[in-house]
Amino acid sequence: MQKLKDLSENNLYLALIHYPVVNKKGETIASAVTNLDLHDIARAARTYGVRSFYVVTPLKDQQTLVNQLISHWTGGAGAEYNPARKAALELIRIVHSVEDVQEDIRKQQDKKAVTVATCAKEHLRNLPFRRLRQMLDDGNPYLLMFGTAWGLSPDFISAADHILEPVKGNTDYNHLSVRSAVSIILDRLLGG
Amino acid sequence: MQKLKDLSENNLYLALIHYPVVNKKGETIASAVTNLDLHDIARAARTYGVRSFYVVTPLKDQQTLVNQLISHWTGGAGAEYNPARKAALELIRIVHSVEDVQEDIRKQQDKKAVTVATCAKEHLRNLPFRRLRQMLDDGNPYLLMFGTAWGLSPDFISAADHILEPVKGNTDYNHLSVRSAVSIILDRLLGG
Repeated sequence: MQKLKDLSENNLYLALIHYPVVNKKGETIASAVTNLDLHDIARAARTYGVRSFYVVTPLKDQQTLVNQLISHWTGGAGAEYNPARKAALELIRIVHSVEDVQEDIRKQQDKKAVTVATCAKEHLRNLPFRRLRQMLDDGNPYLLMFGTAWGLSPDFISAADHILEPVKGNTDYNHLSVRSAVSIILDRLLGG
Repeated sequence: MQKLKDLSENNLYLALIHYPVVNKKGETIASAVTNLDLHDIARAARTYGVRSFYVVTPLKDQQTLVNQLISHWTGGAGAEYNPARKAALELIRIVHSVEDVQEDIRKQQDKKAVTVATCAKEHLRNLPFRRLRQMLDDGNPYLLMFGTAWGLSPDFISAADHILEPVKGNTDYNHLSVRSAVSIILDRLLGG
């Protein structure tokens, strides 16, 4: 394992939301946790120096599953087998809601995080990547929020302080996986 | 489904290599295909207008599995359920080796593709992202090659025309998933 640089250089937190999100029909649901989301996003978060990666789900059985996964890789046989995976999954915090995320950040910094919702669709008040990249240096903690299933619910998005502009490739196709979207967005905001 | 722009605007092909790759001990192996690699990478490839996404494996049973997966999403019940997924998975071509990839590209363009290997480690002859981005406009087809498991074998990397510089975040941690690496690299090479 290589030594990690000081992670306090940026003040970004990440949340993967499993409720409230929408299904294919646009109905608000609580989605199931996908193992590979946790692995891929934790590894990307560690690569870009994200402070913590919150997995947000109100479902107790899902919280238990995530705890088991993390224990395996951070304390169990997995930690010995793959120390790099341990370093990534250690970033995960399992919480009930975004309010709990804010409470956790407040404990660390005595400040509420500025919330930034992500969405594959355009919104009138979209925040450009370049602007958010500058804002990340303003001394405030920032919480970047990603939806699972068919995305964050419209009400949840409206309630966020900011809505990040969608990732566009060079076609009109806008159906990236959340794992890809997180990776690209972290690179655009924090990449060298 | 939105109408896709003309995909001929760039001349990039992508290959996900399952042999020859290395395992944790550095031994050359043939890895198993991971379903989610195909979904995530096909969706990213479609987003960025990649021409074809070659899944390279010499293992017949793995080729059969991939064919079944593609049939489900492009012709079966999956195509009706999720047309966007169909549009992505249609980019996949299953082939035995990189030689077969070259043969397929030659049939389309009467030219051999310039091969570019990717690797999480630095190499003396690393090609910077910016340079490759410029080269993509030179009229030649380019084949960007990604390794599964613990990465492409050293001999395979050495034989490539170019070796792309590794993705760096802003820490020394360099253990992105191949799904994340593909997404970030496509964004750096083709993103707006």
